[in-house]
Amino acid sequence: MSFLLSELATRFDLELKGLPEVKIRTAASLLDAGKDDISFCTGRRHLSELEGTQATAVILHPDMADCYGGNALLSENPHLAFARISRLLYPERRRPAGIHPSSVVHAEAFVHHTASIAENVIIEKSVNIAAGCEIGAGCFVGEDTVIGEGTVLKNNITIHHETVVGRSCIMHSGCVIGSDGFGHAREGDHWIPVPQLGKVVIGNDVSIGANTAIDRGALGDTLIGNGVKIDNLVHIAHNVSIGDDTAIAACAGFAGSTVVGKRCTFAGQVGVADNISICDDAHFTGQTAVRSDITVPGVYSSGTLLEETRSWLKNATRFKQLNLLFKQVRDLTKKQA
Amino acid sequence: MSFLLSELATRFDLELKGLPEVKIRTAASLLDAGKDDISFCTGRRHLSELEGTQATAVILHPDMADCYGGNALLSENPHLAFARISRLLYPERRRPAGIHPSSVVHAEAFVHHTASIAENVIIEKSVNIAAGCEIGAGCFVGEDTVIGEGTVLKNNITIHHETVVGRSCIMHSGCVIGSDGFGHAREGDHWIPVPQLGKVVIGNDVSIGANTAIDRGALGDTLIGNGVKIDNLVHIAHNVSIGDDTAIAACAGFAGSTVVGKRCTFAGQVGVADNISICDDAHFTGQTAVRSDITVPGVYSSGTLLEETRSWLKNATRFKQLNLLFKQVRDLTKKQA
Amino acid sequence: MSFLLSELATRFDLELKGLPEVKIRTAASLLDAGKDDISFCTGRRHLSELEGTQATAVILHPDMADCYGGNALLSENPHLAFARISRLLYPERRRPAGIHPSSVVHAEAFVHHTASIAENVIIEKSVNIAAGCEIGAGCFVGEDTVIGEGTVLKNNITIHHETVVGRSCIMHSGCVIGSDGFGHAREGDHWIPVPQLGKVVIGNDVSIGANTAIDRGALGDTLIGNGVKIDNLVHIAHNVSIGDDTAIAACAGFAGSTVVGKRCTFAGQVGVADNISICDDAHFTGQTAVRSDITVPGVYSSGTLLEETRSWLKNATRFKQLNLLFKQVRDLTKKQA
Repeated sequence: MSFLLSELATRFDLELKGLPEVKIRTAASLLDAGKDDISFCTGRRHLSELEGTQATAVILHPDMADCYGGNALLSENPHLAFARISRLLYPERRRPAGIHPSSVVHAEAFVHHTASIAENVIIEKSVNIAAGCEIGAGCFVGEDTVIGEGTVLKNNITIHHETVVGRSCIMHSGCVIGSDGFGHAREGDHWIPVPQLGKVVIGNDVSIGANTAIDRGALGDTLIGNGVKIDNLVHIAHNVSIGDDTAIAACAGFAGSTVVGKRCTFAGQVGVADNISICDDAHFTGQTAVRSDITVPGVYSSGTLLEETRSWLKNATRFKQLNLLFKQVRDLTKKQA
Repeated sequence: MSFLLSELATRFDLELKGLPEVKIRTAASLLDAGKDDISFCTGRRHLSELEGTQATAVILHPDMADCYGGNALLSENPHLAFARISRLLYPERRRPAGIHPSSVVHAEAFVHHTASIAENVIIEKSVNIAAGCEIGAGCFVGEDTVIGEGTVLKNNITIHHETVVGRSCIMHSGCVIGSDGFGHAREGDHWIPVPQLGKVVIGNDVSIGANTAIDRGALGDTLIGNGVKIDNLVHIAHNVSIGDDTAIAACAGFAGSTVVGKRCTFAGQVGVADNISICDDAHFTGQTAVRSDITVPGVYSSGTLLEETRSWLKNATRFKQLNLLFKQVRDLTKKQA
Repeated sequence: MSFLLSELATRFDLELKGLPEVKIRTAASLLDAGKDDISFCTGRRHLSELEGTQATAVILHPDMADCYGGNALLSENPHLAFARISRLLYPERRRPAGIHPSSVVHAEAFVHHTASIAENVIIEKSVNIAAGCEIGAGCFVGEDTVIGEGTVLKNNITIHHETVVGRSCIMHSGCVIGSDGFGHAREGDHWIPVPQLGKVVIGNDVSIGANTAIDRGALGDTLIGNGVKIDNLVHIAHNVSIGDDTAIAACAGFAGSTVVGKRCTFAGQVGVADNISICDDAHFTGQTAVRSDITVPGVYSSGTLLEETRSWLKNATRFKQLNLLFKQVRDLTKKQA
C-alpha cells in the first residue's frame, strides 16, 4: 500500500511542507529511514538525527518546522500522528472469521459469525464472543464470560469464568484473567483458602500485557477501567480497582483491594501495598514501593540511587545507624548553642 | 442452596445471636450485603460498616457481639468461619470425571477413573493422576510425574517430568513447575548449561499462583512443604526449599539453594538471594531484599519510604555521601569534646 | 550408561588421581553422592563436605588435589568439567522426529524431517523449523518465524510472527517472544497504541526462562545476542538490545530501547530504565535500580540493607530528612571552624 504525502496530510488534517506528490509506503525511525519511509521527531534532542535522516518525509511539531529542509507533515503531537499514519500503512493482521475445527466451542456458547476462533481454543458454556473478536490459538475462555466487540486475544491466554471484557481490548499472550485471589484465613499454623466469589470486569480499549495476571475479586469484583494500559508480567490482586486511562509498566504489582485513580502512571517494578488509595494523576518512578495512601497528584519515588557496590555497601551499612546519627547531630547542635 | 442460620451455627459450632430461622443463601462484604447474605467483621476498624450493613447475618468475634443488634454467629476467628460457610454456600465448580477426547493420554499413564482431564491436555508416559484430580484445558504433564488425590490444575499449566505433587493442591493457570534451573558454568566468556538433574517435590494443600515458575533442582530437589501458599508471578529457583505453611505473595523471587523455614510470610516483590537460610516464623514486608541469613524470628524490611520525586532525589543523592557524613559528625563530636 | 573414570579423564582431557577402573554412572552433590557417583568441589569452603563425601570420584581443582584422598579428576574449572560429564551421563531427553497428528502445521510452513513437533502445536504460514528442532506441546509459532538448528522449545510457548531464533537455543515453558511492545501515544487523557512494527532477533546458544516475555521492536528490532542466558519471569521491552554472553537472573526487567553490553550479569529483580546504555562487563546485584548510563565496567548496587522493621522504619523515616541533615552538619562545621 502506498499514499501520497498530500493524501496523508488531508486524511489526518496536517499541514504539509515540501513536495505533496512523494509516495509513502513504510515507516521507520529517523536513523533507519530511507526512500518511501515516513518518520517522526518528538523534540530538539533528536535534532542531529533529524538533520541526517534519509526519510522521504518527517512528522514534526510546527515549532521545529524551520529545523528541517525536507518534506514534512506538521502536527502538535507528532508521536500521535505517526501512530495513526503507521496504523494506516500497516493494517493490523486480522484472522478470517470462523471457528477452526480443532477448537471446542460449547453448544450453549455464542460466537458472533464475524468473530475468529483459532486453533485449539476452548470456549465454555454460556460464553458470549461479540462481533469482530479474535481469539488466538490455545486460549481458554471459561463459563459465562462475555467478550466485547472487536476485542483481540493473542495466544495461550486463560480467561476464567464470569469475566466481563469490554470493546476493542487487546490481551497479549500468556495472560491470565480471573484466577483466584490470594485469600486465606488463618487456622492455627495453617492457611485455609477463602472462596473467591467475585469476578474481573474490564472496560473498553484496555490493553493487557504478556504473562500478566489479574485475579478475580474475593467478594465484589476486580475492576479495570476504560483505556487502561497494562504491560507484561504485571500482577493485579483481588478487588483492585484501576481508574480510566491509567498506564502500568512491566513487573508492577498491586496488592488486594487497592484503589487507583484515573490517568495515573506506574513505571516498571512499582509495588503497591494492599488497601491503598491512590488519587487521580499520581505518577510513580520505577521500583517505587507505595505503602501509604496518595492524596495529592504528583510524581513519587522511593529507593536509592545506584553506585559502585563497594561504596554502596558502606553507605547502606550507615543507613542502619541513621536514626542514631540524627540524635548525635541534635546533641551536637544543642551543645554548640 | 440455602441454609437456616441455626443450621450454620450447628454445623460450624458457632454461637447464634438473633433469629435462628433466617435463611442464608449467599455471602457478601458488609458494605454490599443485603437480604439472604451472610457477611463477617474482622475488627473494630470496620465498626461503621458493621452498623450500616444490610446483611441477614454477620459473623463476629464474641468481643464485638454487643456492637451489633442484628443476627450474628460468634466465632473466635470470623474470617475462618466465613471461609468455611462461604465454601458451603458456593461449592467449588468441579468438572465431571473422564478424559476429553481432544486430550492425548499416553497408554502407559495412569488416570484414576474419578479424575477429570479437560480439553487439549497432554499426559505423558508413566504419569500417575490420582482420584478426584482435575486437569484443566491445555495443561501438559510430563513423564513420570505423580499428582496426588484431589489436586486441581487450572488451565495452560506445564508440569515437567518427574514432578511429585501432593494431595489437595491447587495450581493456577499458566504456572510452570519443573523447568530447568538457571545453572551455567563459565567457560571463558561463555556460559555452558549445567544439566538440571533434580526434580520438584510439592507437599499437600499447596497453592501455586498464576504464571508462577518453580524450577527443578540441579542435583537434589526443589522442595515445597505442606500447606505452602504461593501467589502469582513468583519465581522459585533450583534447590530452594520452602517450609510448611509459609505464604509467599506475588512477584517475590527466591534464588538458588535458599532454605526457608516454616510459617514465614513474604509480602509482594520480596527478593531473596541464593544460598540464604531463613528460620521459622520470619516475616518480610513488601519489596524487601534478603541478602543474608535470618536466624531470629521477627519482621524484616529494607528500602526507603515513598516521597515526592523532587525531594526524594535530593535525599537519595545524599545517601551516596552517607558514610562521609558519619565521618564528619564523628570529627565534629571529637572536636567538641 | 556407565563410564570408567579413565574414560572420562581421556574424553575430557583431565588428570586422573586414584583408581582408573572405577565405574561412574551418575552424578550427585558431595553431600548426597554415593557409589557410582561423580561429584565436584568448587573451592575450599566446601572442604568438610569434600572430606565426608561417599562419591566414587570427585572433580577438583589441582590446587585442592592434596586435600582429598579418594579418586579424583583434576580440572582448572571443576564446575565446567562437571557440567560436561553430567551431560554425558544424562543425555538430554529428545523427542522422536516427526509431527504429532494433533498439531496444525500450515501447508506453506517448512519443518525439517529431523525436527520434532509435539502435540497441539500450531505452526503458521511460512515458518521455517530447522533440523533437529524440538517444539513442545501447546506451542504456537507465528507467521514467517525462523527457528535455527537444534533449538528446543519446551511447552505452551508463544513465538509471534517474524521472530528470528538462532541455533541451539532453549526456550522454557510459558515464555512469550515477539508480543507487542508497550507503546502508546498520548491523545488528551487517552493512550493510543502505536503499531509495533519491528521483530525479535535472537542469536545462537540463547536460553530463555519460563514465563519470560520479550517484546518485538516498535521500529527496528529487539535484539538478544549470542550466548545470552535469561532466567524466568524476565521482561525485555521493545527495542532493547542485550549483548553476547550476558546473563539475566529471574524477575529482572528492561525498559524500552535500553542497550546492554557483552558479558554483563544482572541478579534477580534488577530493573533497568528506558533508553539506558550499559557498557560491557557491568554487573548488578539483586534488586538494583539502574536509572542512568553505565560507562565503566564494575559491580553496581542500590537499595538498603535488611533490618528489623521496627528499626528500619525509624531509619527510613530519617532518610526523608537526609538532605536537611547534611545542611545541619555543614552549619555545625562552619560554626565550629
